[in-house]
Amino acid sequence: MPTTTWNRHHVLSLADFKPAEYDTVLQTAASFQEVLSRRTKKVPTLQGQVVANLFFEPSTRTRSSFELAAKRLSADTLNFAAATSSMTKGETILDTAKTYLAMGTDIMVVRHKEAGVPNAIAAEMDRLGVKVSVLNAGDGQHEHPSQALLDLFTICSLIDPNHPRLELLQGKKIAIVGDILHSRVARSNIWSFIASGAQVHLAAPPTLLPKLFAEYILEEDAGTWRRGDAGTRGRGDTGNEEDTQTQAYNNVVNKNENFSVSPRHPLSASSSQLFLHWQLEPALQDADFVMTLRLQKERMTAHLLPSLREYHQLFGITSTKLQLCKPHVKVLHPGPVNRGVEISSELMDDPEFSLIQSQVTSGVAVRMALLYLLGSGKA
Amino acid sequence: MPTTTWNRHHVLSLADFKPAEYDTVLQTAASFQEVLSRRTKKVPTLQGQVVANLFFEPSTRTRSSFELAAKRLSADTLNFAAATSSMTKGETILDTAKTYLAMGTDIMVVRHKEAGVPNAIAAEMDRLGVKVSVLNAGDGQHEHPSQALLDLFTICSLIDPNHPRLELLQGKKIAIVGDILHSRVARSNIWSFIASGAQVHLAAPPTLLPKLFAEYILEEDAGTWRRGDAGTRGRGDTGNEEDTQTQAYNNVVNKNENFSVSPRHPLSASSSQLFLHWQLEPALQDADFVMTLRLQKERMTAHLLPSLREYHQLFGITSTKLQLCKPHVKVLHPGPVNRGVEISSELMDDPEFSLIQSQVTSGVAVRMALLYLLGSGKA
Amino acid sequence: MPTTTWNRHHVLSLADFKPAEYDTVLQTAASFQEVLSRRTKKVPTLQGQVVANLFFEPSTRTRSSFELAAKRLSADTLNFAAATSSMTKGETILDTAKTYLAMGTDIMVVRHKEAGVPNAIAAEMDRLGVKVSVLNAGDGQHEHPSQALLDLFTICSLIDPNHPRLELLQGKKIAIVGDILHSRVARSNIWSFIASGAQVHLAAPPTLLPKLFAEYILEEDAGTWRRGDAGTRGRGDTGNEEDTQTQAYNNVVNKNENFSVSPRHPLSASSSQLFLHWQLEPALQDADFVMTLRLQKERMTAHLLPSLREYHQLFGITSTKLQLCKPHVKVLHPGPVNRGVEISSELMDDPEFSLIQSQVTSGVAVRMALLYLLGSGKA
Repeated sequence: MPTTTWNRHHVLSLADFKPAEYDTVLQTAASFQEVLSRRTKKVPTLQGQVVANLFFEPSTRTRSSFELAAKRLSADTLNFAAATSSMTKGETILDTAKTYLAMGTDIMVVRHKEAGVPNAIAAEMDRLGVKVSVLNAGDGQHEHPSQALLDLFTICSLIDPNHPRLELLQGKKIAIVGDILHSRVARSNIWSFIASGAQVHLAAPPTLLPKLFAEYILEEDAGTWRRGDAGTRGRGDTGNEEDTQTQAYNNVVNKNENFSVSPRHPLSASSSQLFLHWQLEPALQDADFVMTLRLQKERMTAHLLPSLREYHQLFGITSTKLQLCKPHVKVLHPGPVNRGVEISSELMDDPEFSLIQSQVTSGVAVRMALLYLLGSGKA
Repeated sequence: MPTTTWNRHHVLSLADFKPAEYDTVLQTAASFQEVLSRRTKKVPTLQGQVVANLFFEPSTRTRSSFELAAKRLSADTLNFAAATSSMTKGETILDTAKTYLAMGTDIMVVRHKEAGVPNAIAAEMDRLGVKVSVLNAGDGQHEHPSQALLDLFTICSLIDPNHPRLELLQGKKIAIVGDILHSRVARSNIWSFIASGAQVHLAAPPTLLPKLFAEYILEEDAGTWRRGDAGTRGRGDTGNEEDTQTQAYNNVVNKNENFSVSPRHPLSASSSQLFLHWQLEPALQDADFVMTLRLQKERMTAHLLPSLREYHQLFGITSTKLQLCKPHVKVLHPGPVNRGVEISSELMDDPEFSLIQSQVTSGVAVRMALLYLLGSGKA
Repeated sequence: MPTTTWNRHHVLSLADFKPAEYDTVLQTAASFQEVLSRRTKKVPTLQGQVVANLFFEPSTRTRSSFELAAKRLSADTLNFAAATSSMTKGETILDTAKTYLAMGTDIMVVRHKEAGVPNAIAAEMDRLGVKVSVLNAGDGQHEHPSQALLDLFTICSLIDPNHPRLELLQGKKIAIVGDILHSRVARSNIWSFIASGAQVHLAAPPTLLPKLFAEYILEEDAGTWRRGDAGTRGRGDTGNEEDTQTQAYNNVVNKNENFSVSPRHPLSASSSQLFLHWQLEPALQDADFVMTLRLQKERMTAHLLPSLREYHQLFGITSTKLQLCKPHVKVLHPGPVNRGVEISSELMDDPEFSLIQSQVTSGVAVRMALLYLLGSGKA
């Protein structure tokens, strides 16, 4: 398998991923996808190594996917679940991580509801001079790199199953729809799709877009979008509506914003590839791929959404709305899906358009690839 | 191992199990029982296959038994526990199952508090045209086939350890005692014992028998049993007592009944093998085997039982009551046992009469057999 | 590996451990420590055997350590967690253990919040004449033998990595500091350190020492210590202070005391090796090793402690206080640590003095040794 281009010790974010690294992950995952089609789906690659799943936030889907990936590489797995842990006994997160380090863990797969926890653990491991790798399995609203890599693999494999690679997305139009503000998946997706040369179109209600993006809209073409949005919502007094929305919006972003601008931020570096919409239609127009995002129902109680029904009407993906896209458009969703909210139930089950099941399958191959790339350097 | 007679893709219910299928399970389990007596208790049969335990209802005993069976066949196991799952995030059960399918699961072991969930998942897998097998590990008050098969194996192995088979139970008298109404175990037991040619005698308080059975009693020999029951309870005004019982009974069965009549229902097809009693003694008289059922203590708060003490007095199995049975009678219980309620503590621990520990041991062998039979067809 | 001196079937307590047994554990652990430094850290020793972790009390650290130890010996593991168990269904602990026995468990690792549960399970296994071994992973305030053995191994390995043995501690001064009253770790530590010939100095506030010890102090040199203690606390009215303390103390020990005197109790047999202090300084003076104990924050609400800050001031270990000890003193803690309470954060992370990470690493090797010694006799 192609590891010559791989020098990375942790996978924490896709912000600094190089094209050669993306391609190494894609090609390694393709090799494992082939292994998974065999009768005996195991390889002895990581025999005797220990993969610790440190899930400070509950998860079934991602944890099972990582656990299965580790087992198929013949690693031993340890599962840490916050509920039954020493966390309630006052131990710090770094101390928990160091305990698993001392037990002999080789790779830590870390999920936490706060952004930056995997980075902090990785920094501590580096400071200690140990060879343990840290893999971010989702941190707050920051990043979820393995999810974005499996999305990338799913799409690239569809275009060229034998040789999935970044350049296949050059010039494709990809719509990302939904709760961009709170989505670590979207943040990681944006990095990878921008790196591929795709055109990325974000569509969300204004309350569910990061403030940074709102300002960007205001500078470039705010008038259009804001008027358009208010119009679409069809509420009488546009002025008042804007005021209320702005206020609710500011209340939220001040508390939730953590999508900071950096020199390599896609908005600054690649504004010719990133487009923002407060309506769904311009994002869907001629799209090759539509990524729908999970809507946390809790957002409604935070007054960010009027109702699930209105959300579905405005931003839910249906067969009818999909007619705006290219004929062979495909729809993705990181799961778990609220049927009838982010996507219509019938579209979700339509194998002609839905890649949702493929994403889950890709997840095991991509996570095997990541564990393999991080683990094979240990001796 | 004898698999020639096995064409079944799922194990959801014993209602349509054929005698040859019972015998295949029994003989395969006997082979694995032999494996389990060796120093190294593992076989590589299911290496590389994935068994997912989807337990939407908490369980330790059954899940551990299936997990150990899978590990001894060298399968990889994934444990899904409802408590830490996406279920709380609004995903449907079928979507959860499809996620595990997409990860590469070969066999799904499903427990759910609602009857029919394993059937629904199996139907969905068949609709999708995939080779995944579904094994019902207990669904509501419907069925618990692996428990009934291990009960069958325990009894048949006792009679002929080298060649356990269905016909060994021909003409035996088996009493099933306790909360028949709510017992998925009893429902599966009835199918297997009727298929074996045994005489099955159910004994329960009228409030804990399915309504269907109550009507059957009324038609055939209700007078006797009803008077007998009321007499035994020794309460003054028989008429009033009946009224109260009938009303409580109707309140319950209207809510809990799900033992529907079908053309192949044992009551319609094999009434000469199934007997119903509102008292314990006629069921125990000359019995070869006594199956006691777990009493959910919650039933008391639902006013189905006067007290645990009275229940034990009337339907609890003790050494004294056992003197009504054949001399070599054996007692079974699916566990976990409420000592001193369903069965006296001293009898439970008496190796001369109790098969309770053997049942647990048989459980691993029978579940290995089921996983083997379902899994060995996959390629 | 040296097993000639090993005839023990269970590890429940260190009270009756013989010096040869300690040395067998230490030397076996040293062999496994070497295995753990290899690239492939697994040995096939317990292949096909089943280790059941019966944790009736939640734990992450100890359970993960045992689980990893079992996996590295190639055993299959079953995890029982009280939260999702039949315990809530009314099954007795012994019945749960017998269920795991019947499934084919070879070694049971048992933790319970009540003292004596592992002993009761072991007694039941012996009564049944089965070969299953029971390993106490912490029972109430009674014992935690594997923790004390890993502490012993950590210290002895430091002195002679190639040949860790009990006699290396002859004449060393070991301070055990903190909540002795509630600590099962301290109880097991005392047995092993006394057996080694070390001088053991306990230091704790009077409310956190077992009543037995308080009486011992009163008889021998109570006046001194009590005056010293009251003085240190620097509170005005010494008489009143003592009254209040005595009353609070009596309230507690009457409820919590379970450190019973036996003919082999270290206080009766080895009083020349065990010393008691209500102040930290005399215990630290010229100490070779300082064992700090975890402080349950719940103790404060029980009015046993004025505040965490005062506790840290009086009994927390810091670099400054460590200057009382020998120059090469080392500090241990069983974890999880409350940073800034039992030990200062900076000292905990100082590799020159802290053995806390080594303890965790030793834990896997020592538990492999215990499982190996208990498991290798089974055939």
